[in-house]
Amino acid sequence: MTLTDHQPAATVLPSSGALLPVSAADVTITGGFWADRQEVNGTATLRHCLKWMERLGWIGNFDRAASGVEAPSAGREFADSEIYKLLEALAWESARSGDEWVERTFQDVSARVVAAQQPDGYLNTRFGGPGQQPRYSDLEWGHELYCAGHLIQAAVARARTHGVDAFVAAALRLADHICDTFGPGGIERIDGHPEIEPALAELFRVTGNRRYLDQARLFVERRGTGTLNAGETGPEYFQDDVRVREADVLRGHAVRALYLASGAVDVAVEDGDHDLLSAVETQWRNTVAHRTYLTGGMGSRHEGESFGDDFELPSDRAYSETCAGVASIMLSHRLLLAEGGAQYADLIERTLFNVVATSPDASGTSFFYVNPLQRNSPGIEAMVDEPSPRAASSQRAPWFDVSCCPTNVARTVASLSGYIATKSTAGVQLQQYAACALDTVLPDGERVRLSVNTDYPWSGDIAVTVEADAGREWTLSLRVPSWARGRATLDTGMGDQPVLGATAEVSSRFRSGDVVRLSLPIEPRITLPDPRIDALRNSVAVEAGPLVLCAESVDLAPGTHLRSLSIPAGASPSREEGASRWPPCRPKIRTRHGPTVLPLPSHR
Amino acid sequence: MTLTDHQPAATVLPSSGALLPVSAADVTITGGFWADRQEVNGTATLRHCLKWMERLGWIGNFDRAASGVEAPSAGREFADSEIYKLLEALAWESARSGDEWVERTFQDVSARVVAAQQPDGYLNTRFGGPGQQPRYSDLEWGHELYCAGHLIQAAVARARTHGVDAFVAAALRLADHICDTFGPGGIERIDGHPEIEPALAELFRVTGNRRYLDQARLFVERRGTGTLNAGETGPEYFQDDVRVREADVLRGHAVRALYLASGAVDVAVEDGDHDLLSAVETQWRNTVAHRTYLTGGMGSRHEGESFGDDFELPSDRAYSETCAGVASIMLSHRLLLAEGGAQYADLIERTLFNVVATSPDASGTSFFYVNPLQRNSPGIEAMVDEPSPRAASSQRAPWFDVSCCPTNVARTVASLSGYIATKSTAGVQLQQYAACALDTVLPDGERVRLSVNTDYPWSGDIAVTVEADAGREWTLSLRVPSWARGRATLDTGMGDQPVLGATAEVSSRFRSGDVVRLSLPIEPRITLPDPRIDALRNSVAVEAGPLVLCAESVDLAPGTHLRSLSIPAGASPSREEGASRWPPCRPKIRTRHGPTVLPLPSHR
Repeated sequence: MTLTDHQPAATVLPSSGALLPVSAADVTITGGFWADRQEVNGTATLRHCLKWMERLGWIGNFDRAASGVEAPSAGREFADSEIYKLLEALAWESARSGDEWVERTFQDVSARVVAAQQPDGYLNTRFGGPGQQPRYSDLEWGHELYCAGHLIQAAVARARTHGVDAFVAAALRLADHICDTFGPGGIERIDGHPEIEPALAELFRVTGNRRYLDQARLFVERRGTGTLNAGETGPEYFQDDVRVREADVLRGHAVRALYLASGAVDVAVEDGDHDLLSAVETQWRNTVAHRTYLTGGMGSRHEGESFGDDFELPSDRAYSETCAGVASIMLSHRLLLAEGGAQYADLIERTLFNVVATSPDASGTSFFYVNPLQRNSPGIEAMVDEPSPRAASSQRAPWFDVSCCPTNVARTVASLSGYIATKSTAGVQLQQYAACALDTVLPDGERVRLSVNTDYPWSGDIAVTVEADAGREWTLSLRVPSWARGRATLDTGMGDQPVLGATAEVSSRFRSGDVVRLSLPIEPRITLPDPRIDALRNSVAVEAGPLVLCAESVDLAPGTHLRSLSIPAGASPSREEGASRWPPCRPKIRTRHGPTVLPLPSHR
Repeated sequence: MTLTDHQPAATVLPSSGALLPVSAADVTITGGFWADRQEVNGTATLRHCLKWMERLGWIGNFDRAASGVEAPSAGREFADSEIYKLLEALAWESARSGDEWVERTFQDVSARVVAAQQPDGYLNTRFGGPGQQPRYSDLEWGHELYCAGHLIQAAVARARTHGVDAFVAAALRLADHICDTFGPGGIERIDGHPEIEPALAELFRVTGNRRYLDQARLFVERRGTGTLNAGETGPEYFQDDVRVREADVLRGHAVRALYLASGAVDVAVEDGDHDLLSAVETQWRNTVAHRTYLTGGMGSRHEGESFGDDFELPSDRAYSETCAGVASIMLSHRLLLAEGGAQYADLIERTLFNVVATSPDASGTSFFYVNPLQRNSPGIEAMVDEPSPRAASSQRAPWFDVSCCPTNVARTVASLSGYIATKSTAGVQLQQYAACALDTVLPDGERVRLSVNTDYPWSGDIAVTVEADAGREWTLSLRVPSWARGRATLDTGMGDQPVLGATAEVSSRFRSGDVVRLSLPIEPRITLPDPRIDALRNSVAVEAGPLVLCAESVDLAPGTHLRSLSIPAGASPSREEGASRWPPCRPKIRTRHGPTVLPLPSHR
């Protein structure tokens, strides 16, 4: 067993591409919106997830499997994966904060996981044990490889942040077992839920062991060839209707589609498979153009938690699962690294603020699973101290019978600094805006140190201070979000200059103390929907900076119904005019700042 | 075992109410729209259903159960009910047409069913046999009482049309077994899927045996008390969230909600339970006002095949299951008999033409399961010679894995003459318009014979000829559909007179040869949606008479997209202006005449 030396702690680490990831360890978020969320995540959310999974026996499943005793499994067939996502979050958080409880918890829980591994490397608490269904007897719905994928992903995070330990070694044995079992001449099928694909590709990047990449490619290539028994859901649900390289849009179960596409990008990048990469780019483009909510949310159907037809984007019945937001960020981040287009970072920003950040409440212990853009009725009260069986109730709940979202949010927020910037030989690209300190080394050894000062998204002013003299000229790139194009200004000490295009670039042999200021126009703006979206005809949204604002009944005069709100044609909201409701958006973030649909006066 | 003497062959036969049903045997549909459909139904559809259920082994399940041999069951857990609904259709059709094949088939199939009955009266091919789950071990999802309800309903139809035979006797034994098992002190629970409630109430009406009514009441009263283990769907799915008499709107799974409400009306009417009847009336009113499509379709969510929130009525994702249309007619017919309001017959008409009639194709061998009002993409091609696993694909298919709709259409169309008219001491009320002959006896013995001549819905002219001299003055009532109110005229030989109100009434000591002519305005008209329906803002529908018209891409100039259609503000379609597209609606009925949503010019 060998590991590639000096792995940066990147959330994803392709061998090649337009841009390089910055190690999460190279960026420290120092204050503001995301620092607050990382703090809550690292303390309250991680403890909360651990408490629930202990209480419900999901972690106990591993102890029972290790003991070899026949006993019923707790939770659903994919419960193992929640422990793995928590382990991934703990690995990132331990590296980020150095918190002792976090590190000790990782070691304790991962030891219980490792103890349940079978001698041949197999590891799943639901199959293959005494009184259980045989291994791999229900690839459609059993989630065995899906769970394995999340274990491997957690091990990748652990290896990149802490090096090899017993947990990483267990992941390698499991990966070897999977390659032995599902390789050429083995079970030539796939798992109903993708995730093993990006996990194996990333494990290849950690280890340099090509068999993992080859197996990831096999899984990607087998999909769309009808190896799954589709039944009532239809093959589209599993993305088993069309081969990945032949599809032109994402479809079916949204999380599955996005995890699969992420794995396909990984395989394509490692193998230089331009056709496959291009196919996923096309899928991303069509999906974002026709099947994505203003919030970045994906998946418009409750039925099958799936993408709908083009322009089928109802606000009230938006499923827009939190996990699909996480998965969309996984995919866009990979395409950003491969291609470098600002549109990918734009969607990451939109999704981070309007799907991921809005899922947990301020305490970090109650979560939205679905993220509709409109709610017409108060809905069912969330239960306070038992798992909600109703993920789709449009209410935050502390835990769910299917509780994929809390741990997915946790691992994303814990590793968020890995999404802030990218780098290349040319220099550093700031992709997301947060108050932070960056200290990274360019491929030629040039060290770049920056500090970013901003109250984004409450302010559009971003000040970047260079903290070390440059050894050579390099370029600082600042993304100009699509909503700010043509209205952003840059000040390099010579006064505000208009920025053209999707990035503001400053090339210089920087000196310590140099300051570059970017100003983004975040006053509220009205956004008109595509007229092909039936549910939004004659409606508008109000956005401010990266935030999609939300009108809430609690903010209205007593007796006023949300449906009675209208915006006069030609109205242009501004901070001044709307002073009573803006900036009060700020405390509002504690509830839900996602959705807004305000009907204009009807023709009736 | 006693049977009430001289049962009229009514589809439902309350002991009291504002109106009496007319026996299906008293009305013969003689030509036109519904005669064509009855002919196709009685020949092609019944044979088609039989063929599929033999081919798939669903009828064979009974042979296997009768043999006592352990073997797997074919089909889904509710497959028995499809055989029972076919038997009900065969019973009605045998009485209607006197066709020998139909009668022989009833006898053959019913004999195979009866042979599978257990000594204690239990009858279900899925539970309680060797190697099977125990009886009543899965009341939430097992559908045992649901299947029993459909068996009993078929027996009610058989008893009313043919008297008591071995099948009816088997139904009585099954009903007794159910009362023994689920009565006071027994299993004090309910079935996840209502249907046993109206079936037992109707069996009481056939037999006069009060224990069936008491048991029906018990099942109605137990619902809403949380005896079902709701799980992920939530109790609303089963209507187990609120007691029937406390609910104010239908909710959850649409077919379940409507079957339950039908049974509640039956119980309320027999027991003079005004509170319960009033509760269901309120539910009907709120559901029709806020949760029903223009077509009469009910159930706007694919998820859970369920009602949505108020005004959640998207055209494209309308589920509007064919069976919910059938169930809605069951409920409205009961409320019509109980209360006499024209609104109930109006909804029956709307649903018959736009949901039930549109489900089968012209050949009567391929069916819509869901009935959306808009389709944005061609959808998945229906499979020709295998059951479709995808009921929700918006394509007609010859059969489905869950194939509830074909037999539900078959039993409704076969018994349709029972919905044409009602009667009372005052006279006869024509509730639905079709060319027909009616020969019925009023409660005091006065015999009424009429013939109705019309090409409805292609023409709005309805001529009613009295075919026998009256023994006394009586009143002929003609329903004026809501869309014709204020624009209908009546001619009793004195020229056209405007009709005010919801019925045109003529009281006379009629003489044979008297003719009453009603004219309904069926030229196309534009219907505006309630502005609270998000999906329909800035849209209109075009209706003509009882039909909701449909714009189809095949009728447009090549290259024209449906989305590009618009109607100028203030436009008023007419036969003259729209000659090229109207009356060609007539052949169009062969495809789908249900939906129309034409966007008006957007404000953009």
